[in-house]
Amino acid sequence: MNQMPQVLKGFRDFLPAEKRARDFVMRKITNSFETFGFEPIETPTLEYRETIMGKYGDEADKLVYQFEDRGERMVAMRYDQTVPTARVIANNYNDLPMPFRRYQTQNVFRADKPQKGRYREFTQCDIDIFGTTDPMADAEILACTYAAYKAIGFANVILQVNDRDILFSTLQPFAAETVSVFSIIQSLDKLDKMSREDVMGELQNKGLTTEAARACVDGIEEAPISENLRRILELAEKLGVAKEALEYSPTTARGLDYYTGMIFEIRIPGYEVGSVGGGGRYDNLIGQLSGLQVAAVGMAFGFDRTVEAAVQMGLVPTETTSKRVLVTMFDPTLATDSALIAANLRRNGLVTEVYTKQDKLGKQLKYADRKKIRFVIVRGPDEAEKGVVTLKDLQTGEQKTDAFPEILELLISHQ
Amino acid sequence: MNQMPQVLKGFRDFLPAEKRARDFVMRKITNSFETFGFEPIETPTLEYRETIMGKYGDEADKLVYQFEDRGERMVAMRYDQTVPTARVIANNYNDLPMPFRRYQTQNVFRADKPQKGRYREFTQCDIDIFGTTDPMADAEILACTYAAYKAIGFANVILQVNDRDILFSTLQPFAAETVSVFSIIQSLDKLDKMSREDVMGELQNKGLTTEAARACVDGIEEAPISENLRRILELAEKLGVAKEALEYSPTTARGLDYYTGMIFEIRIPGYEVGSVGGGGRYDNLIGQLSGLQVAAVGMAFGFDRTVEAAVQMGLVPTETTSKRVLVTMFDPTLATDSALIAANLRRNGLVTEVYTKQDKLGKQLKYADRKKIRFVIVRGPDEAEKGVVTLKDLQTGEQKTDAFPEILELLISHQ
Repeated sequence: MNQMPQVLKGFRDFLPAEKRARDFVMRKITNSFETFGFEPIETPTLEYRETIMGKYGDEADKLVYQFEDRGERMVAMRYDQTVPTARVIANNYNDLPMPFRRYQTQNVFRADKPQKGRYREFTQCDIDIFGTTDPMADAEILACTYAAYKAIGFANVILQVNDRDILFSTLQPFAAETVSVFSIIQSLDKLDKMSREDVMGELQNKGLTTEAARACVDGIEEAPISENLRRILELAEKLGVAKEALEYSPTTARGLDYYTGMIFEIRIPGYEVGSVGGGGRYDNLIGQLSGLQVAAVGMAFGFDRTVEAAVQMGLVPTETTSKRVLVTMFDPTLATDSALIAANLRRNGLVTEVYTKQDKLGKQLKYADRKKIRFVIVRGPDEAEKGVVTLKDLQTGEQKTDAFPEILELLISHQ
Repeated sequence: MNQMPQVLKGFRDFLPAEKRARDFVMRKITNSFETFGFEPIETPTLEYRETIMGKYGDEADKLVYQFEDRGERMVAMRYDQTVPTARVIANNYNDLPMPFRRYQTQNVFRADKPQKGRYREFTQCDIDIFGTTDPMADAEILACTYAAYKAIGFANVILQVNDRDILFSTLQPFAAETVSVFSIIQSLDKLDKMSREDVMGELQNKGLTTEAARACVDGIEEAPISENLRRILELAEKLGVAKEALEYSPTTARGLDYYTGMIFEIRIPGYEVGSVGGGGRYDNLIGQLSGLQVAAVGMAFGFDRTVEAAVQMGLVPTETTSKRVLVTMFDPTLATDSALIAANLRRNGLVTEVYTKQDKLGKQLKYADRKKIRFVIVRGPDEAEKGVVTLKDLQTGEQKTDAFPEILELLISHQ
C-alpha cells in the first residue's frame, strides 16, 4: 500500500471552505479592476532564467526557484508579476494601446524561509497603468484600490499616502558617504513598528549624529505635502475615494528602492496585523528591466492578508448563509424522482446536489449537515405514495410536506 | 540596454482579448460546477517528487518537470489534478464528507514536445465524485458536463457514452498472450480517426487472425448496451440532459487504462478538431495512488479546445459588444470634471476609464478605438463653458451634446 506524502513545507492545499473564501474575495477584487477598465493578462509559470534573474537584487535572486529543464534550458519560476509584465510590454509594445492598464492575479514562488503568514507559493493581485506620468493615473490606482476594498465589504479603508519626492528633498541634506538617502528612508519606514528613539538609534548606528538623526525624524514627521501629492489626492477624491480614507502620511516610506513618486499603503482599521497592500509610482523600473522606457504606477494586494481580514470581519458568505439544497436518494425507482426534482431545482437557479449513494436517510442528513447544506428535500416511499416531497430546514429544524411546486415556491421565496 | 527574452517554447502569454475569452468560458464552467454542488479545491504547483512520479507510467514520468530545490528536496510540478486530489483525500479523509464532489481548475505542466494545440503549461478543469459506485454519480457527471457546455452557449453538445464492461466482455474472447484486451481497446479507440480496414490491420499486426480482427470490430460496433449504462443514461436524462445529446457509442474506448465502468467523450457538432473533453469511472485509481480504496467518477474539460470552439462559434462576448466608456482628459481644471464624471458612471455600474494623459482629443479617440471602447465622453473647454458633455458612439459615429444627467440616462438605457 502506498502512503501519500504530505504537502511541501511552505505550500498549501485549499479545501473547499477556504478556497471559496478566496474565490469570493478574488471575484470582488477583479470586478472592481474591470469596472475601472483594467484588462487581464496572464503569463507563464516558467520563464527563461535570464528573464527573472538579476532583476530583484542579489538577496532576492537567491529566492528564485530555478532549474535546468530537459532541453538543457535554464528556467525559473515566476517570482513576481512586474518582471513578466515588463517582458510582455517589451515583446508586444506595438500591439498595446498606451497608456496600458492591466491587472494580473497569478501565483508567485519564493524559496523563502516559511513562517507564519509567509509562504513559498502565494497569490499576487496587481493593477498598473503604464506609459503616463500624469497624476490622474496615480489617482486612478488609489480610486480602484479603494473601490476594491469597499466592494469586498470593508466599512473602513485607510490609504496612507506619501511622495518619495518629499522624503528625498527632506532627507537629502542628511545623506553622507556612509549613509544613503535610501538607507535613511528604510529606517524611517519602521516608525510605525518601532519607537522614535529606536529609529533614531538605528540612524545613529548608520553613522548619523544624534542631532541629524533627530532632525531626520522631526523633519519627516513635519514635512509639508507636495504639490504633486495634493493634486493626486484631489483627483482621487473626485474619483470617489472618501475624504477620510485619504491620509497624508509623511513617515510612510515603502521598503522597495524603485519607487520614484507617490507611494501608499492600505490599512484596514480593526485588522492590526499590518498593511494589506500598497504601491506607488516607479517610472524607471520598466526601462531597467526591458530597455524600454515606460513610466508606471500601480499597486499589489496582499491577498492572503486581505482574505484573512475579510474572514475575521465576517464579510465572506459562509456555506450556511447560502441557499443550497440536497435531494436525498433511495432505491432505483425513487432515484429517478430525485433526479427529476434536482433538475427542476437547478433550472430555477438553486445550487443543488443529489445524494449519490443508497444510504439510510439519517446518513444522508448527516452528510448535508457536515457540508453545511441547509435544505434537504426528501422523496422517500411515503412521499412517493402521496405524490409529495418533504422539505427539511436543517438550521431551524422545521419541516414541511407538500406537493413539489409548492415546496419549490417556498424554497425560491426563502429569505 | 537590456533585451527581454521571448516566452519559452510551449508556453503562452495571454493578452487581454484572449485572456477575457478564457475567463468568460471558465466562469460559465465553474458556475455550472457550483450549481451542481461541486466544491472547489486548490493544490500547490510543487509537490514532493515521490507524490507525482511513478503514478502515470514510465512514458508520462519522463514528461514531469522535476528538480532539486534549495533545501535538497526533490520536487515536481503538477502534472495533472487527479494525483494531487488523491493526496488531498488521503491527507484529509476524516474531514471530507463522502461522497466528496470537488472541482479543480489549475494549470498543469508537461515537458512534452510542443506542437499545434499542445502546450507545456495548460489549464485543466476537472469534476469528480469520490466514494460511491452508484449510477447516480455517473449521471450527475454527465448532467453537469452537459449543463456547462450549454451554459457556455453551445447549441448542440453530444456525449458519446460507453461502458468499459461492454468492451471487456465483448473483447475478452479475443485476448491472447500476445495481445491484451486493453491493447485491443486501444486499437478500436482509433475507429473515429482511421478506416475499419486500417484498424483491423493494426489488430492483425498485434497478432490477431484476420477473422478475430474482423470479429472484434464487428462485435464492438454491434455490442448491445449494458444494463448499467442504460440506467446511467436514464438518470442523466431525468437530470436534464436532452435525449438527443446522449449517444451510446460502443466504439468509444478512451485511451487511458484506468477506467473501470462508464466512459464518455464530448463532441461539439461543427467543431471538427476532435473531442473537447471526456471522462469516466475509475474505481481503482485512487486506491493505487493513495492506498485508500475510494471509488471515483469524473471528467476533464479540454479547456483550450473548448475556448477555441466557443470563439469560433461566436459565443464569447467581444470587447465591442460590451458597454464600456472612456472619459477624455484635458488640462488640470477639466481633469477634475473628468474624474467626477468617471466616478458617477462607475457608481451607475458602467465599465469606465479616464484617459490618463493630456493628449489631443484625436489621440484619445484613437486610444478608445484601439481598445474597442465604444463610448467616449468628452468634457472639453467648449463643453465646460456650456455646462454639458458630448457623448460619442464610435461604432455608429453619432454624437450628442447635453447635460450630464441626460447623457448618463442615455448610456444606461442603451441596448
